[in-house]
Amino acid sequence: MFNERGYDGTSMEDLARALGVTKSAIYHHVSGKTELLSQSLDLALNALFAVTREEGATRGPAAQRLDHVLRGSVRVLVEELPHVTLLLRVRGNTAVEKRALERRREFDHHVADLVREGIVDGDIRSDIDPAVASRLLFGMVNSIVEWYKPDRGLAAEEVADSLSTIAFKGMRA
Amino acid sequence: MFNERGYDGTSMEDLARALGVTKSAIYHHVSGKTELLSQSLDLALNALFAVTREEGATRGPAAQRLDHVLRGSVRVLVEELPHVTLLLRVRGNTAVEKRALERRREFDHHVADLVREGIVDGDIRSDIDPAVASRLLFGMVNSIVEWYKPDRGLAAEEVADSLSTIAFKGMRA
Repeated sequence: MFNERGYDGTSMEDLARALGVTKSAIYHHVSGKTELLSQSLDLALNALFAVTREEGATRGPAAQRLDHVLRGSVRVLVEELPHVTLLLRVRGNTAVEKRALERRREFDHHVADLVREGIVDGDIRSDIDPAVASRLLFGMVNSIVEWYKPDRGLAAEEVADSLSTIAFKGMRA
Repeated sequence: MFNERGYDGTSMEDLARALGVTKSAIYHHVSGKTELLSQSLDLALNALFAVTREEGATRGPAAQRLDHVLRGSVRVLVEELPHVTLLLRVRGNTAVEKRALERRREFDHHVADLVREGIVDGDIRSDIDPAVASRLLFGMVNSIVEWYKPDRGLAAEEVADSLSTIAFKGMRA
C-alpha cells in the first residue's frame, strides 16, 4: 500500500481495512506507520547485505565476487519486490528514510570497491570509472522493480544471467 | 517543483510564488497545471524520439543504430534532467500521464526492435532476450536521473562512453 498510495497517503486505518483487522490489532504488533516503514526498508537492506556476506561474495577474485553480488541482488529484488521498491523510492525525508539511504550508500560503495579491485586485478577494463560503472550496474539491477512482473514466468535466474552477460561480456557477439 | 513536491503537492500558487509572478500571469500562458505537466512530458519524449530520427539512428547496422540511440538518450537525460525525471515518475493516473506512458512504451519497443535486428545481423549475441536486454539497457540510462549531479563536472559524453562500453563490450578486460 505504501508503494501504491505513497507512505503519506496511507493511513493505519487503510492498512487495517486492507488486512481485515482492527487498527488496535496492528498497534498490538507495531508502534505505528514509522515502524512498518522501518521494518520494510530493513528487510530489503538486510537481504542485500546478506548477499555481500555469502561465500561467493567474500572469496575469490573481485570480478567474480562482483558477479555474485549482482546476481544475488537480482534474486533479492525479485524475491522482495515490494520492500525493495519501497526502498528505491525513499527520498530521505525522515530519520528512518535517512538511515535507509545511508545503508544504501554503504552498499553502493561496496560495489564500487569491487569494481575498483577488479580493475587492479586486471580482470575489469580500466577505461571505465568505477563509481559510474557501479551506478550503471545498479541502474540495471534496480530497473527490475519497474518492469518485472512475477506472474509472467520470467525466472530471477534468467534475469540474473542476462544482466551478468551484458555487464561482463557485453552484448556484442 | 513537480519533482520535489510531487505533482499533486504543487499548486499554481506555489508555482507563481517560486516564479515571482502572479497566478494570472501563468494562466496567461497555460490553461493550468495539467498543461504544464503535459508540456514537460512532451519536451522529454520529443527529445528522445528526435534521437531515433537522427542519421546515426536510421542508417547503418542495427547494433550501431542502437549504440547511437543509447548515447543520444544519455545526452537527452543530462540536458533535460528535470523533464525526464518527471517522465520516469509518471504512474499513469491521468489521461496526460497515460499518453506519456504509451509514448514511452513505443520508445521501448523501438529499442527492443534494434536489439532483435542486431541479433539477426549476427552483431548482437543471441543468448540474451531482446525485451529483457532493452529493459536492462534503459535501466542503466534511466538511472542517470537518480545519481547524475550536473555540477560535479562529469560530462554527458563520459557517461555515454562508459554506458556504451559496458553495454557492447562488457566490463571484463
